[in-house]
Amino acid sequence: MRALDRLAVGQQGDHRALVRIVTSVKSVPLIDNLQYSNWSEQVFRELNSGGVHAVHATIAYHESFREMVLNIEAFNRWFERFPELIMMGRTGDDVRRAVDEGRTAIFFGFQNPSPIEDDLGLVEICHTLGARFMQLSYNNQSPLATGCYEIVDAGVTRFGRQVIAEMNRVGLVVDMSHSGDRSTLDAIDISVRPIAITHANPSWWHPARRNKSDEVLGALTSAGGMLGLSLYPHHLKGGSECTIGSFCRMAYDAAGRYGIDHVGLGSDLCQDQPDAVVAWMRNGRWTKVTDYGEGSAAEPGFPDQPTWFRDNGDFGNIRRGFETVGFTEDEVDALMGGNWLRFYDESFGPS
Amino acid sequence: MRALDRLAVGQQGDHRALVRIVTSVKSVPLIDNLQYSNWSEQVFRELNSGGVHAVHATIAYHESFREMVLNIEAFNRWFERFPELIMMGRTGDDVRRAVDEGRTAIFFGFQNPSPIEDDLGLVEICHTLGARFMQLSYNNQSPLATGCYEIVDAGVTRFGRQVIAEMNRVGLVVDMSHSGDRSTLDAIDISVRPIAITHANPSWWHPARRNKSDEVLGALTSAGGMLGLSLYPHHLKGGSECTIGSFCRMAYDAAGRYGIDHVGLGSDLCQDQPDAVVAWMRNGRWTKVTDYGEGSAAEPGFPDQPTWFRDNGDFGNIRRGFETVGFTEDEVDALMGGNWLRFYDESFGPS
Repeated sequence: MRALDRLAVGQQGDHRALVRIVTSVKSVPLIDNLQYSNWSEQVFRELNSGGVHAVHATIAYHESFREMVLNIEAFNRWFERFPELIMMGRTGDDVRRAVDEGRTAIFFGFQNPSPIEDDLGLVEICHTLGARFMQLSYNNQSPLATGCYEIVDAGVTRFGRQVIAEMNRVGLVVDMSHSGDRSTLDAIDISVRPIAITHANPSWWHPARRNKSDEVLGALTSAGGMLGLSLYPHHLKGGSECTIGSFCRMAYDAAGRYGIDHVGLGSDLCQDQPDAVVAWMRNGRWTKVTDYGEGSAAEPGFPDQPTWFRDNGDFGNIRRGFETVGFTEDEVDALMGGNWLRFYDESFGPS
Repeated sequence: MRALDRLAVGQQGDHRALVRIVTSVKSVPLIDNLQYSNWSEQVFRELNSGGVHAVHATIAYHESFREMVLNIEAFNRWFERFPELIMMGRTGDDVRRAVDEGRTAIFFGFQNPSPIEDDLGLVEICHTLGARFMQLSYNNQSPLATGCYEIVDAGVTRFGRQVIAEMNRVGLVVDMSHSGDRSTLDAIDISVRPIAITHANPSWWHPARRNKSDEVLGALTSAGGMLGLSLYPHHLKGGSECTIGSFCRMAYDAAGRYGIDHVGLGSDLCQDQPDAVVAWMRNGRWTKVTDYGEGSAAEPGFPDQPTWFRDNGDFGNIRRGFETVGFTEDEVDALMGGNWLRFYDESFGPS
């Protein structure tokens, strides 16, 4: 493990080149199933040069339906301006097209159900507009379910059950990354299709509030669901100082417990975001008293990324790390995108 | 002509049966390119038994974006409830699928640009949601163009030019049915793709304010555009008493002037609508003084349909009428849907 942990910044250029060659020969997709970067031409170029074929991009935290649509409009302008770099993602086949064409497919998701407001009919409308993942709650209580920072988790609500059924019908994936345990277990039980925790780690590795219990992860994956491993420092053992060896050994143990087919990446990368954005994520319009979420008054902003995963050029480090801890080549391919691609194929269309 | 004009209600059952046989053998599409019926299971069953394969359905008169989305939500529920009768239409191939499967494809359109509000980005969003036609103005001035009842028609505005370019880019058809002449001539000139007047008749046949001058129709069709002939009594010579012979002879003359390829049907059928709806169409939220549009204080409601075109079961009468006035079989097929299908194929995708 030592050699792995010593991976230095200076070496990364070579790894990136290697990854591009490997993926181009094998046509293996690289999928990061959660980012909320400050999208720009620069970020799109890094996704492209980093060989990332698909990203699940958060386009709503607290936005109303109309505000969320404005965010899609912004992406539409980017799709129009940078067709050689990015494309709209709607299906697994769009990932394959992105692999073939050397582009990055962007899949939309919501971290909160605010865009559907109080209207069940907006579930299908949002799916038509491209939404493929929706969290039922973000830290707080929502009309659908309870967030992981809420006082009491009373589970999935009456409206929540209707929404899950509608999400199942149209092919919009239930995501419980920021929900409480009871709500999450409810959602796994109520949903007739596999659900996802797009970005979190096991609490047996790092007992953060946002990480998930063995019970939750066992139930999730037993029901066919997917866990996206997070690279957000608050979810990492040791935070920003977490070693790549520790992260990859955790992945190895998680694959052993939950099945190699049910684990992928959901980096939670918030690249180039100012600290005002993490304040928006946590506080939205719901409080006058600052909520620091996973941060604190002393450290209210975005934490520093670990040196081995700073941006979209660093997925080569993760791949090498997975190889080093004992995963086979096929297993690494599955973790780096193959599992998400299978899940996309099975989840994004009508039931 | 006498025999044609004498077509009696009692004979219609036979004609309908005949039309169904003919269309099923030939797989010729029957397309009505404008209806604003009071949609219901009954209307869907009539569309189906009437052999109508595609309808351009108005889903907005004065609706905001969010209100228009509610109307799509209502259609989504109908698509879910009546999959054996109707389906969402997005492309010409959906019409072919509807023909093969004996269903009716519903294509969405707006009679006013109100759903895009002041936001150019909503053009693509509305197209993604299924909109395929949008009028730039409805009777009054809009931010884009001038309606045919407005005091002064100053032509297509600055915003209107941006919107036309965006509509051209994404494949949303400019419809000028309720616009003034100058705005219409401007739109024909500015649009780089053929546009449509989905529901109107030539004013040389019946000089109603909503019917179109020879200059407008010549410019429209010379630029590749389509005219949908209207069966709304205010657009018919003699109103509700118009004979089918007169209507079909007008069609014959129009095809002679503008080319057989540029004429189709846009019946403007408002089946089962209460009179409150025509008041909404005319008055929206813009006036406290009742505007009667094509009606009058004495006759404020929907006019009676002519006996030979009362509902979606009566297209067989139109077909027979076209045959009787001298159109060839191929020409009748083109008028009844073939021309619109070609136009759909060429118009509904990116440029």
